Amino acid sequence: MTAPLQNDTFLRACLRQPTDYTPVWLMRQAGRYLPEYKATRVKAGNSFMGLATNVAYATEVTLQPLDRYAIDAAILFSDILTVPDAMGLGLSFGAGEGPRFAHPVRDEAAVKALAVPDLNKLRYVFDAVTSIRKALNGRVPLIGFSGSPWTLACYMVEGGGSDDYRLVKTMLYSRPDLMHRILEVNAAAVSAYLNAQIDAGAQAVMVFDSWGGVLADGAFQRFSLDYTRRVVAALQREKDGKRVPCIVFTKGGGPWLDELADCGADVIGLDWTVNLGQARARVGDRVALQGNLDPAVLFATPEVVAREAIAALDSFGPPQRSDGTWDGHVFNLGHGINQHTPLENVAALVDAVHSHSRALRSPHTASG
Amino acid sequence: MTAPLQNDTFLRACLRQPTDYTPVWLMRQAGRYLPEYKATRVKAGNSFMGLATNVAYATEVTLQPLDRYAIDAAILFSDILTVPDAMGLGLSFGAGEGPRFAHPVRDEAAVKALAVPDLNKLRYVFDAVTSIRKALNGRVPLIGFSGSPWTLACYMVEGGGSDDYRLVKTMLYSRPDLMHRILEVNAAAVSAYLNAQIDAGAQAVMVFDSWGGVLADGAFQRFSLDYTRRVVAALQREKDGKRVPCIVFTKGGGPWLDELADCGADVIGLDWTVNLGQARARVGDRVALQGNLDPAVLFATPEVVAREAIAALDSFGPPQRSDGTWDGHVFNLGHGINQHTPLENVAALVDAVHSHSRALRSPHTASG
Repeated sequence: MTAPLQNDTFLRACLRQPTDYTPVWLMRQAGRYLPEYKATRVKAGNSFMGLATNVAYATEVTLQPLDRYAIDAAILFSDILTVPDAMGLGLSFGAGEGPRFAHPVRDEAAVKALAVPDLNKLRYVFDAVTSIRKALNGRVPLIGFSGSPWTLACYMVEGGGSDDYRLVKTMLYSRPDLMHRILEVNAAAVSAYLNAQIDAGAQAVMVFDSWGGVLADGAFQRFSLDYTRRVVAALQREKDGKRVPCIVFTKGGGPWLDELADCGADVIGLDWTVNLGQARARVGDRVALQGNLDPAVLFATPEVVAREAIAALDSFGPPQRSDGTWDGHVFNLGHGINQHTPLENVAALVDAVHSHSRALRSPHTASG
Repeated sequence: MTAPLQNDTFLRACLRQPTDYTPVWLMRQAGRYLPEYKATRVKAGNSFMGLATNVAYATEVTLQPLDRYAIDAAILFSDILTVPDAMGLGLSFGAGEGPRFAHPVRDEAAVKALAVPDLNKLRYVFDAVTSIRKALNGRVPLIGFSGSPWTLACYMVEGGGSDDYRLVKTMLYSRPDLMHRILEVNAAAVSAYLNAQIDAGAQAVMVFDSWGGVLADGAFQRFSLDYTRRVVAALQREKDGKRVPCIVFTKGGGPWLDELADCGADVIGLDWTVNLGQARARVGDRVALQGNLDPAVLFATPEVVAREAIAALDSFGPPQRSDGTWDGHVFNLGHGINQHTPLENVAALVDAVHSHSRALRSPHTASG
């Protein structure tokens, strides 16, 4: 039905298969740093959810960075909070503000009332996935995504972003039974949501555990990782005879890299505090790694961007090991691209990743 | 001149010497969660700097938590940004806001104009230290402190707090020469400032690298740790025949624990993402460890607080090793105490730390 994939480098790197170069994409690559994104957003009434819920607009902005840069994957334009919105919590984005829920989940009654939402309420997401797959026409693979159960719970309890996570952590420590109930519902909902994205055409999926890193050691394992693991275990991992890679990214998850590598995902995303070479040495034989340039590097000059990208590639090293097998590296930032990023620096990044990673694979330098 | 120290448990733990129990103090223990602090602040015109620059008020609020709780150390009431304020950057605290500098350091001219400040401009700090030492009358040791060179630089360039550290990281990556110049001045200023606090009576000093954890691996070593190391190397470590322990705390510094342990400090502070037992196994034979309860635990019940404190102590384990030598643990939070903390929970924490750590040292449980 759909056109054959012309560039499967990203999928191959996720699965630790041989690649000619290191694939690259950027978290939040369709976003406010692009003038064409801002133009489409104006058409959508300058509303984030206006963009995300309109299949034509969501398709348009998803493809915009691909027309500008030689990136190796597309990612669905959406938000991590669509699932709790479908649960009836009333998501909105104020002007210049972060997300807000009209009905945060803060007491036993609200927790008891939570349920896996009717997936028909998220039809706009699945329709966007199908539309984007069609529009991509095989250029690069499409990544679907969701927030992790814990990250969704943070927003659901706090009602928005937070500096200290006081409300959600108070519930976690005072009423762990309520927190576990929220996380169970979220895990079931996220699994169903991602499986529906795969049915609609997503060729890989990513779980954003954006706030896992705010948890204490011990609490992270019980309240974030255990539920991420449930999600991963419930995913369909093959579709139309092809493996559907799963990426898990815990911002600030460096301390738990070994445990993350055993969560069942094919790829672990890393933020910029992690040394790529050391991470590869620890877990590279179990999972591929994605990351991990500091998005702030993109505020410098194209020369600095290229130098830092090369340093990251060198830190990982040639992906082929001396025994002939391959480790996987998907180049990315360690967090979403910042709205103040100069456009030419993204081009410099993509070019440097592609050219230097090809050089790293040449017989003269590839020593494994 | 001053009264002999009645409780040196904190100092002994810092130096990995035998102790009867695990000492505890809390970052920001003199602060807004205490009603008596708020009352003194009203007397000072409801101004943070009004409190910090008035020797009598600074002394009063420093001692307030000691009158309420059996904590094992006092820490000077001040702010990490007094040094750049003395450099002429114009520190202020807006109502309900964080710190602001009227004259941020953002261009070459401003960087070139920076110099180590005349320490007489910080006389109010040293006078407070001397006054507090006198008022303590030997009850517990007094800790002096400063921000780290990097953390000061963040505020100096950004002009205040930041979400993305765009300005300071842009300078770091685009003009590392300017950033190094700021850090050199800061390192010299912080060293002189801490040495003057020691001369005034501080019995231990702590370097708060609050924003080291926002740096990428590699950048952290070059722009934060190298300058912290310079500060530590320049400190007087003995005063009146007594060792003056130095604590270094990098929030988010878990990924660099091994390198931090070699920075010359006696104690490394840990945030709550770090597993205490694993950290001890890695570096406990080189440095004492301070931390690391999530301050959010204090939002729960006294029972939960006690349980989590006990879990942290158990994670570290009995400080005496099987060969008879001692490792050091100073109990603390992994970050400053939150203003919404219930008072009774702090009492529960201190009691649990003291009683359980005594039990851990009993012959029945102390297996090293």
